[in-house]
Amino acid sequence: MKHLLSITDLDKKELTSLIDFATQIKANPALYQDKLSDKIIATLFFEPSTRTRLSFESAALRVGAKLIGFADASTSSTQKGETLEDTIKIVSGLADLIVMRHPASGAAKRAAAVSKVPVINAGDGSGEHPTQAMLDIFTIKENKKTLENLNIAFVGDLKNGRTVHSLSLGMAHFNPNYYFISPPSLAVPAEIKQALNLNKIKFSELTDWQKIAPQIDVLYMTRVQKERFNDVAEYESVKDAYILNANSARLFKSTCIFMHPLPRVTEISAEVDADPRAIYFDQARNGLWLRMALLISMKY
Amino acid sequence: MKHLLSITDLDKKELTSLIDFATQIKANPALYQDKLSDKIIATLFFEPSTRTRLSFESAALRVGAKLIGFADASTSSTQKGETLEDTIKIVSGLADLIVMRHPASGAAKRAAAVSKVPVINAGDGSGEHPTQAMLDIFTIKENKKTLENLNIAFVGDLKNGRTVHSLSLGMAHFNPNYYFISPPSLAVPAEIKQALNLNKIKFSELTDWQKIAPQIDVLYMTRVQKERFNDVAEYESVKDAYILNANSARLFKSTCIFMHPLPRVTEISAEVDADPRAIYFDQARNGLWLRMALLISMKY
Amino acid sequence: MKHLLSITDLDKKELTSLIDFATQIKANPALYQDKLSDKIIATLFFEPSTRTRLSFESAALRVGAKLIGFADASTSSTQKGETLEDTIKIVSGLADLIVMRHPASGAAKRAAAVSKVPVINAGDGSGEHPTQAMLDIFTIKENKKTLENLNIAFVGDLKNGRTVHSLSLGMAHFNPNYYFISPPSLAVPAEIKQALNLNKIKFSELTDWQKIAPQIDVLYMTRVQKERFNDVAEYESVKDAYILNANSARLFKSTCIFMHPLPRVTEISAEVDADPRAIYFDQARNGLWLRMALLISMKY
Repeated sequence: MKHLLSITDLDKKELTSLIDFATQIKANPALYQDKLSDKIIATLFFEPSTRTRLSFESAALRVGAKLIGFADASTSSTQKGETLEDTIKIVSGLADLIVMRHPASGAAKRAAAVSKVPVINAGDGSGEHPTQAMLDIFTIKENKKTLENLNIAFVGDLKNGRTVHSLSLGMAHFNPNYYFISPPSLAVPAEIKQALNLNKIKFSELTDWQKIAPQIDVLYMTRVQKERFNDVAEYESVKDAYILNANSARLFKSTCIFMHPLPRVTEISAEVDADPRAIYFDQARNGLWLRMALLISMKY
Repeated sequence: MKHLLSITDLDKKELTSLIDFATQIKANPALYQDKLSDKIIATLFFEPSTRTRLSFESAALRVGAKLIGFADASTSSTQKGETLEDTIKIVSGLADLIVMRHPASGAAKRAAAVSKVPVINAGDGSGEHPTQAMLDIFTIKENKKTLENLNIAFVGDLKNGRTVHSLSLGMAHFNPNYYFISPPSLAVPAEIKQALNLNKIKFSELTDWQKIAPQIDVLYMTRVQKERFNDVAEYESVKDAYILNANSARLFKSTCIFMHPLPRVTEISAEVDADPRAIYFDQARNGLWLRMALLISMKY
Repeated sequence: MKHLLSITDLDKKELTSLIDFATQIKANPALYQDKLSDKIIATLFFEPSTRTRLSFESAALRVGAKLIGFADASTSSTQKGETLEDTIKIVSGLADLIVMRHPASGAAKRAAAVSKVPVINAGDGSGEHPTQAMLDIFTIKENKKTLENLNIAFVGDLKNGRTVHSLSLGMAHFNPNYYFISPPSLAVPAEIKQALNLNKIKFSELTDWQKIAPQIDVLYMTRVQKERFNDVAEYESVKDAYILNANSARLFKSTCIFMHPLPRVTEISAEVDADPRAIYFDQARNGLWLRMALLISMKY
């Protein structure tokens, strides 16, 4: 793999072997501690993200790599009017691989076009977040023992939620049945639906989960992200609409798993954390093994 | 030790053996350079602090550990409305130990309650700052050759100064005699005095050091911290009240030591730095050996 | 070398041997990967700079050193009113070498005066930026095969551009002929001209490059730095005055090299990047080898 920009850069075989590799690493991480000991990895976060940045950095250190980078564009030359392309050209002369998060959709692709070293997209605006999708798929496999023929409900802000876009494309290899559950103003974008239609993926769009809850194998909750809204009033009106709590959790079957890319705010009550179906913290931790597998698998 | 949240987590024996270990490390630090080479330490500074963060990071690197973290909450998911508990649950899946500073008193205890890995409190609001107290005690021992039966004066903002709270509790094992010297509005809190009374520690509260200066063995100056005040006028009225300069330094005996947790602003004049009794920069450096000792001693 | 504060700290022999060492490192960097494996280097950026910071950090990691530091003064104790001198005294107790960037001219010299460990000036206000000059000289040597008797044009903001100040002083060892090309309000400072006169360096000041373009061996473009202006209108009036694009590039001979310390904004059009004379990205990358050479050469 030269770059990882989108989950669609991987075919079914590449995706499943990467997940198998992450499974092996999870079983014995110490075996891989010197794999990249001659590499320097740059983590360029033009938009802050604790969870994703620390997960990548921990993964890089656990395979022996060293780190440079920034956590915040305000400390970068972007402030001085430098283009993304120039920043990437310079950093690709200093590091052996670039992990980047950027607020603009398409930024990772622009970076890859000028980089001399591999680029991993760690989230670009409302575009994609492929490693999140990969760790989500890893977690589904680990818990459901299969990826095939699952009923998956995506809930919340499906318009702006890049994790939903990436995951729905990534799971398309495995004959899923999707339910997109959101307020109409936050529905899944037309281009995602087009891509799913092209791949003949079954999906339906709903405004609540009442009727379909008992059939769901994977409930994928998302945050209604305040920073994606232009209008605070609109945010306030929808933010509490799709909440998983002890009461609504009863609608789902005992083998359903509750996932969330985190951070969560009010959309999953803390009382659900102790429910054995709530696996979102395990899901976050799985990012470590998946990212170790990915970093080792890149072509340097 | 599972967590280090308060100086009171250590009994007298634990505290003195940790100080003895720091003394050994100081004599030959290179012996310990690979002790934690398989560990990743997260430094989570929800409130900025150069000195404490860099001291912990240098200590961690000098015992072979690797680092992830943030220097500033503005680059963390806290900005997205994530709770402290969720952040800690996630980071405790990525790192082997968490060092945290937080603006809210009690934050370290909340973190420890949900963390899967050890938590070290690097200062929580006006609460505690146990490693500062430990390096202070290490420095007192090194300079006075004993910890027992000392006359210690604490000067400045004793209400908000967490280092004073931690140190006065930590030295309570060694039969001290305390003088708390502050303006009435910045007096030492009732709960600290209660704890001292329970332990039968002799102390008195004064508004100046005129009468007691000649008896003092340890003069512990503190910064009147602007960021702890709601009212700038109140800050301006007290900030210059308790100043150690060449002139006032003459009141103290030749064997007295002048300490300060740093950063200092105007409360100790630069002219005092050359006085052999001024040991505050040595005190800061001692944090390195003490924190190396602590990091090695934690139960992973 | 105890400290590197100014390019004038190096005599001709020291400068050329450092450049020869950087050339050796570039040919086989892996040979040097453990040279500083027992050292901790502090990068203290009181003013943000991606390029310089990441270049120093990559260089330090590539010679085996470990890193502490900050990318931004807002996360430092400076915010609490601490003096630069106190910060340096404390950090020099934690690290084996300090690399610092600061907005105030003369800051590096003040730091060196109190530091127990070597200090490298990574840019201080409109003062100096010696490692930039060193990598520029390294790049000139690599491309022109000689440093002697070159016609060098400096273009843009020559008043505030610290890279121009350092480079014009550094090249003074090699009998250059300088053309300073700028609007009158941004002319090269009197103290630089005085130093050049003292060293009997030929130079002339011009407001455009029309007449002298064909003779130039090295065209050194600089950014008109918005953050150095008090008045936005003045910035807007001059920022586009000295632009290198496909058209103006034709004025220069085929053996001329186009350099820029980067980041560039509009002063070099992206269309020039593909011109073989445009070597500014190679120049930036050369900073890595030069800084590895420098870090190894310091006296710890």
